[in-house]
Amino acid sequence: MAREYSPKQIELAVSTIKTLSIDAVEKANSGHPGTPMGLADITFELFSRYLRYDPKDPGWIGRDRFVLSAGHASMLIYSMLHLAGYDLPLEELKNFRQWGSKTPGHPEHFHTAGVETTTGPLGQGVGNAVGFALGAKLKAARFGDAFDAVRVFAICSDGDVMEGVSGEASSIAGHLGLSNLVVIYDDNKITIEGETDLAFSEDVGKRYEAYGWFVQRVDGHDHGQIRAAIDKAVAQKDKPSFIVARTHIANGAPNAHDTAEAHGAPLGKEEIAATKKNLGWTLPEFAVPDEVYALFKERAADNQKEKQEWEARLAEWRKANPERAAELDRFEARTVPADLYDVLLKALPEKEDATRNLSNAIQQVVAEKVPSLIGGSADLAPSTKTLIKKSGSVNTKTFEGRNLHFGIREHGMGAVCNGLALSGGIIPYGATFLVFSDYMRPSIRLSALGHLQCVWIFTHDSIFLGEDGPTHQPIEHVWALRAIPNLAVVRPADALETAAAWAIAMGRKDAPTAFALTRQKVPTVKRDAGFDPKSVLKGAYVAQDATGGKPDVVIVATGSEVQLAVGARERLEAAGKKVRVVSAPCLEVFAQQDAAYRDAVIPRGAKRVSIEAGITGPWRQWIGDDGLALGIDHYGASAPDKVLAQKFGFTVDAVTERIHSWLG
Amino acid sequence: MAREYSPKQIELAVSTIKTLSIDAVEKANSGHPGTPMGLADITFELFSRYLRYDPKDPGWIGRDRFVLSAGHASMLIYSMLHLAGYDLPLEELKNFRQWGSKTPGHPEHFHTAGVETTTGPLGQGVGNAVGFALGAKLKAARFGDAFDAVRVFAICSDGDVMEGVSGEASSIAGHLGLSNLVVIYDDNKITIEGETDLAFSEDVGKRYEAYGWFVQRVDGHDHGQIRAAIDKAVAQKDKPSFIVARTHIANGAPNAHDTAEAHGAPLGKEEIAATKKNLGWTLPEFAVPDEVYALFKERAADNQKEKQEWEARLAEWRKANPERAAELDRFEARTVPADLYDVLLKALPEKEDATRNLSNAIQQVVAEKVPSLIGGSADLAPSTKTLIKKSGSVNTKTFEGRNLHFGIREHGMGAVCNGLALSGGIIPYGATFLVFSDYMRPSIRLSALGHLQCVWIFTHDSIFLGEDGPTHQPIEHVWALRAIPNLAVVRPADALETAAAWAIAMGRKDAPTAFALTRQKVPTVKRDAGFDPKSVLKGAYVAQDATGGKPDVVIVATGSEVQLAVGARERLEAAGKKVRVVSAPCLEVFAQQDAAYRDAVIPRGAKRVSIEAGITGPWRQWIGDDGLALGIDHYGASAPDKVLAQKFGFTVDAVTERIHSWLG
Repeated sequence: MAREYSPKQIELAVSTIKTLSIDAVEKANSGHPGTPMGLADITFELFSRYLRYDPKDPGWIGRDRFVLSAGHASMLIYSMLHLAGYDLPLEELKNFRQWGSKTPGHPEHFHTAGVETTTGPLGQGVGNAVGFALGAKLKAARFGDAFDAVRVFAICSDGDVMEGVSGEASSIAGHLGLSNLVVIYDDNKITIEGETDLAFSEDVGKRYEAYGWFVQRVDGHDHGQIRAAIDKAVAQKDKPSFIVARTHIANGAPNAHDTAEAHGAPLGKEEIAATKKNLGWTLPEFAVPDEVYALFKERAADNQKEKQEWEARLAEWRKANPERAAELDRFEARTVPADLYDVLLKALPEKEDATRNLSNAIQQVVAEKVPSLIGGSADLAPSTKTLIKKSGSVNTKTFEGRNLHFGIREHGMGAVCNGLALSGGIIPYGATFLVFSDYMRPSIRLSALGHLQCVWIFTHDSIFLGEDGPTHQPIEHVWALRAIPNLAVVRPADALETAAAWAIAMGRKDAPTAFALTRQKVPTVKRDAGFDPKSVLKGAYVAQDATGGKPDVVIVATGSEVQLAVGARERLEAAGKKVRVVSAPCLEVFAQQDAAYRDAVIPRGAKRVSIEAGITGPWRQWIGDDGLALGIDHYGASAPDKVLAQKFGFTVDAVTERIHSWLG
Repeated sequence: MAREYSPKQIELAVSTIKTLSIDAVEKANSGHPGTPMGLADITFELFSRYLRYDPKDPGWIGRDRFVLSAGHASMLIYSMLHLAGYDLPLEELKNFRQWGSKTPGHPEHFHTAGVETTTGPLGQGVGNAVGFALGAKLKAARFGDAFDAVRVFAICSDGDVMEGVSGEASSIAGHLGLSNLVVIYDDNKITIEGETDLAFSEDVGKRYEAYGWFVQRVDGHDHGQIRAAIDKAVAQKDKPSFIVARTHIANGAPNAHDTAEAHGAPLGKEEIAATKKNLGWTLPEFAVPDEVYALFKERAADNQKEKQEWEARLAEWRKANPERAAELDRFEARTVPADLYDVLLKALPEKEDATRNLSNAIQQVVAEKVPSLIGGSADLAPSTKTLIKKSGSVNTKTFEGRNLHFGIREHGMGAVCNGLALSGGIIPYGATFLVFSDYMRPSIRLSALGHLQCVWIFTHDSIFLGEDGPTHQPIEHVWALRAIPNLAVVRPADALETAAAWAIAMGRKDAPTAFALTRQKVPTVKRDAGFDPKSVLKGAYVAQDATGGKPDVVIVATGSEVQLAVGARERLEAAGKKVRVVSAPCLEVFAQQDAAYRDAVIPRGAKRVSIEAGITGPWRQWIGDDGLALGIDHYGASAPDKVLAQKFGFTVDAVTERIHSWLG
């Protein structure tokens, strides 16, 4: 079906990719010219022959996905998108890496049409590609074979394959037999510090064979070899493909060729002149020969036909499956019922329990109402309590279920979930212990930067996990997560607040939400009569107000420590103090309320106390630097949770006394 | 040299290890019984035949290292240490996981003699083991062959090999040909969620072959096979060894055998009874047969002889190399000259530059004075500027140099550095971009929890790295690092403060230090006449005080933003305001000063402003919730740094205006 191009046509197009890329890096005086040059042959083949896309409809749900995991080679993707006919005019290429341009230093999917995922932090793109491929398989199992046509092509660098996250994700892909995934490894033997043999002498192809992939080795500048390998790769029925492409960085640049210097700095005017001479290139800067535009126009036209055929196939399925078709639309839109919170409140678990267990009960209702919710745990489902009970497991070649098994691979889980979110329609969740959020932090950050609706479920959220000791006890993690812009962290105190956590997460369509849930049982918060459950959705609210007027002290607490605030209030009120208890499950959402509400709940002028079993410093933004911050600023210890509560001052007695003596 | 034991002796000892472990878990009603049972055969062989140790002198520098990467199986190591004669009486085993015991839920090297590293967070122990092995090689190259005798034996679990960090570290070990390293993989096919084939079907042995390791496969309960494999492993001359030991979790427990349930919960009275019956065990709880004690006493005696021979060998070397011998002692003590800071001040670079470059100049002097300093970068040395110029690179079989090349493996770097620190005498440093501190955060945390003198050098410390864009621009990272207990974060403003950063790091012998350094050039801070450079070591100090009396406003700034404070002060003073500038390179060290000093520098009552190109919330612990926090609470953008400064308000003009209008 693909057209044949003459060697001359290919050479001209490849030279165009190379010259556009080096011209843009030179003009920006910043960027990475060597890798686009080394990969121009491969990306030409991908975009001119394999990738199914519609540049005028970059969101076409049946499109193939292209992932440039080596995001530093961003000029490569910008050059390709421009040539392929996406809305990325030459002017944007000339503004590479400048304020306001569509061509930032690393590709950002939320910024540039045609960019499928945000890459740069190495290894993440490989994980995202696994997520895309898994997403297509999940959709094919739900919404028919059309989605089987969706393929994922990724290009990765030495750095990508050295990073552990790519190994974790690739192991998952091999296990699941994601045959719709082709990863091409830019084996150019050069990294920033010099030749890869400074630090890297493993047999990467063999490693991918060990993961269960179909592995081939080619000369990355030989178009016949590239095509033959990709043809075999896309023909695979039960394995993902890995193509080790031996390439040369700055291929075509007479002096920069095969050097580390070509990685991260402009080639310079002289070397550019020498390169263009070497390529037989006589056109001015940023020139694109008409023949090259014409070639990609033909490709776009061919792809239009493919798209129409695909749409026809889907339409046929829609006709035969009208209910599923409506479901597909709801799924793609990640539809959440408007009354979800009300539904959850009606179904609240009545028994007091750990919030991880309460969350699991509530999650069952969410899962019923929101089919987009699909996820799993890093081998901790029995502990994180995150299984969707009415659904099965996704496993090798079985993609009907909603429960994913990520293995003990938190970072891979994060990157795969991000890919699932990007693949459309899926609201992924990933679960582990809170302390291990550190293992996947780069992916959490990218979900926040990339506006992805992911739900990160972290349990065992404080020292009160007990006997596992300080290696497993979070101290700084809640605040470390709160530090990430665009991430909301919800630490619920009881069933009601856990329902609110899920409602908040389902409502944040353009941003991720993290939960911090307890291992230990917590009591239901006693709230004032007349309390409105909707106020929980504001992030913080008055759970119990001071009796008879303005409070002498406002105690702000979260999660399992709200019970301490409630207990201390009772004693302090008995001792004649007027005490307000504010429960603050989500400070980010609270911060978004108007100043009047914020000040009505936590008045600036009031004497304020915070209670949370974690570091105290950042609390002072809410309680002032003269407030009393009760928490723990050192590592915990291995002992039963009740002993730790005694030793570290997290009892009603201790808290009451601290507040009492502080109030004076 | 090793003694032969009868099958009966072996069986009795192995049963003792198993029963001690399950009894302790049962008594604690918490812990992991299955893995100690599955590994008892292997650890018996290691402790009775291979490991060279002196239980009465656990710090013997010539000892072999045993790493239980699968830290959840902690009762295994406690049982072994008890039997081997370490100072860990039965009473401690009976207090497993209790407050104040020497037997916490996961092994902690700073807490229990004989435990070499703190494990539990999976994969870290493998990386630490690589660090131990590398440390021995580095010492052998410096201080003679005796250190070649030091071997490292590690046991790892499915979880350990699934985690990317172990893959990264193992790739480094394969590259360096660390023949003194033997990792035994507890291939029990069971994880928490069930059988490993839920999520894990790769060929781990083949993967390790791809890393360049010598790989063997054995029945992990067949003592002949175990011994034959370890014999071959320790005979390797140029490769680390990986032994895939097929084991059965809860081996010996008739019903729990091969079940996920045996992983993380006590067996229960009934199953313990059945197990003991099955083992032919008729003794009471926590019983150790005299024959078993006797066996390990013999082993200890044999090891004493080995130790004496080793000491004799070292003494011989000392005699032949008196200067090197003195150097060895200084090295082992991680000696730092008392006047290091003075020396650094005398050698301060005079040219204004980026703090990453200033740091490199200062690092050269530190390296000359502190031979313990050995480290490298995650393939970013030309960018992080962290090479020790007068020294060579460590590479395959070349261990004389001081420059390590970690490849693009931040997490592996972190875990290996922790192992280097634990191996004794080495002050490791690891470098990458600040944004990628997230990739290695679990290892940074363990360095802080474990009191390790590591130096984490992070450059490109703000949006002012410019064109690389938001994926590379730290926003939350400085505060996220400050959140980690026992870690000091130094963000110096100029050469003088960078010297202080190094002095602080070298002085923190029981804790890690992180640097946040600029990519961009910064001016030398203008300080008041009479300023004492020693005050920088206090973490924060008055750089310029208000002219003529009590300040109207105190501006606290760090790193590249100190220049903005200085610039704004000049304008504000010209406009009649009295302005103090406090430079605060290290808030953790400042927080340790007495209240009088702290209040003298940043008076509580004063109107206070903070300027730092990162999140602002946590700053309110220093400036109050009514202070003015200037920073950036959202992601950055791709553009040249000066453009970003304009757009995001980090210019003297913008800062002056913000403060001026705030002061009213």
